[in-house]
Amino acid sequence: MDKPLKYAVFGAGSWATAIVKMLSENLDEIGWYMRSVYTKEHLLKEQHNPNYLSSVEFHLEQLKISNDINEIANYADVLIFVIPSAFMHSELQKLTIDISNKTIVSAVKGIMPESGLLVGEHFHDFYKIPYPNIAVIAGPCHAEEVALERLSYLTISCSDAEKAQNIANALSSDYIKTKISDDIIGVEYAVMLKNIYAIAAGIAHGLGYGDNFQSVLMSNAIREMKRFIKKRHKMKRNINNSVYLGDLLVTGYSVFSRNRMFGNMIGKGYTVKSAQMEMSMVAEGYYATKSAHLLNEENDKKTQMPIISAVYSILYEGKNPKKVFNKLTDRLD
Amino acid sequence: MDKPLKYAVFGAGSWATAIVKMLSENLDEIGWYMRSVYTKEHLLKEQHNPNYLSSVEFHLEQLKISNDINEIANYADVLIFVIPSAFMHSELQKLTIDISNKTIVSAVKGIMPESGLLVGEHFHDFYKIPYPNIAVIAGPCHAEEVALERLSYLTISCSDAEKAQNIANALSSDYIKTKISDDIIGVEYAVMLKNIYAIAAGIAHGLGYGDNFQSVLMSNAIREMKRFIKKRHKMKRNINNSVYLGDLLVTGYSVFSRNRMFGNMIGKGYTVKSAQMEMSMVAEGYYATKSAHLLNEENDKKTQMPIISAVYSILYEGKNPKKVFNKLTDRLD
Repeated sequence: MDKPLKYAVFGAGSWATAIVKMLSENLDEIGWYMRSVYTKEHLLKEQHNPNYLSSVEFHLEQLKISNDINEIANYADVLIFVIPSAFMHSELQKLTIDISNKTIVSAVKGIMPESGLLVGEHFHDFYKIPYPNIAVIAGPCHAEEVALERLSYLTISCSDAEKAQNIANALSSDYIKTKISDDIIGVEYAVMLKNIYAIAAGIAHGLGYGDNFQSVLMSNAIREMKRFIKKRHKMKRNINNSVYLGDLLVTGYSVFSRNRMFGNMIGKGYTVKSAQMEMSMVAEGYYATKSAHLLNEENDKKTQMPIISAVYSILYEGKNPKKVFNKLTDRLD
Repeated sequence: MDKPLKYAVFGAGSWATAIVKMLSENLDEIGWYMRSVYTKEHLLKEQHNPNYLSSVEFHLEQLKISNDINEIANYADVLIFVIPSAFMHSELQKLTIDISNKTIVSAVKGIMPESGLLVGEHFHDFYKIPYPNIAVIAGPCHAEEVALERLSYLTISCSDAEKAQNIANALSSDYIKTKISDDIIGVEYAVMLKNIYAIAAGIAHGLGYGDNFQSVLMSNAIREMKRFIKKRHKMKRNINNSVYLGDLLVTGYSVFSRNRMFGNMIGKGYTVKSAQMEMSMVAEGYYATKSAHLLNEENDKKTQMPIISAVYSILYEGKNPKKVFNKLTDRLD
């Protein structure tokens, strides 16, 4: 029998903590890299993450926790990155060991802000990881419900079905059902785009639009997402599968979504800067909006994307949200 | 110039009241039939419906209100029925005049419980109305938001595009955007099916499933709806248009939906009977579930519909909701 693969998680936010919890249902040992010395010390002493999902108690004998990214990268065969995209670059800078023979899994909910690359593309281009060794974990899945062990579904995408299944098995449990997919590019774009639509939903709510409009917005968003992804990577996919539509809905309808909250503040009249200052962290959708806009500027891949364009003009061109949405409503149906 | 068409609304519930309000933005006179003498008297005295959307004030000079269904049917060219499906049969029994030359518009959110026919089919079969003279008004649209003049979108379906547009124009205003469609059968089924999915969402909520599962349920529901409708009436349609997906979402995510509330009580352990007794009216989705089940029994039109089957087995076969949903979760993805 093959030696079982060693898994490690990089990051200590709520989604990272949830993934460690899922893995701990199946694996004897999990590597866990976190930047914060305080978080590590707290975990080792109190058996829970002090900042996120603190109700989740871990068994320390299952965890190999370290503040040294190279130690954990060296330890594991499968490296799951769950770091906000804005911090990915600075964290990856610390990596000095060769990871070209590892399996890289992205659970980053965004795009590399510096390059506009998908996380998978980034690892492929800069770390020489072949595409069959790159996978993506996507929801629909709020980390908070994983903590409560509420039934959730994950999709693991990888062009190598066996690898996808191995990762899926490591994550599956009584409360986590998994599915595999080979649409790694489409899924990465969907994860990125849904955050923009969550900002749009927040702006609409902040401006006083109601539930009727929200449902029209989501119905237009999924059609826009389908067009956008098709232009980037044409293949047979059902955009209404959970990993695309479900993930859009769980984010777009969540009052806890950071992106929706950010949008809501913009709709209520905050400037982009003051909304960002109010929040402890920049919403992923902020970067995604710019990237999606730039990607769509590439001539041969242009598509109609009125919602993303509306959000872009508000966030990056200082346009008035009320006026922009008033125009947008004429383009939706 | 042609004489403008005369419109009348039949019913005095919240959706009927909302439709009268929309029409009153455009028309000089609207016929309004209601069963209740009390409601009529109150409206004539206080200028608002005592029971529904009572914040909406009407101008009496625009309204021709009557408790005589034949008087109003005789008056109008376009008859808009907005009566709960459970009461349609008994109300229509009162009709003694010939309506075969009228345009019939259904805003009934269900199916005729006695025959299992769509409302349009019912008028076609029993009142000799040709299909081009039958139309359907559908959302996504909560009546309560119409009362608040919050932007909402309606789709008017009719095989005669000119008729559809005429009705659309009568309903359009600053806060109502309209679209026309020729998929009258598909839209009627969608309106009916969404109520079943709202019951399913309610049951799930009552059983303790969370937002992650709700999004998976909705993602599966729209795919199931697509399969069901395609079997009944195959044509090119985008199931993600607002009239299908948007309407599913506005109902399935609404905590005010009567169908979702009914399901929630079932999930919490009420029997079907006690849940019905607690609510002042039987949820449309209750009848829709049986109809959808029976329709799918027709051999050549059978499709996989795990969600509807689960709801059917709970509502009509006395199966345990927890066990049924536990099995259902394995069939969703």
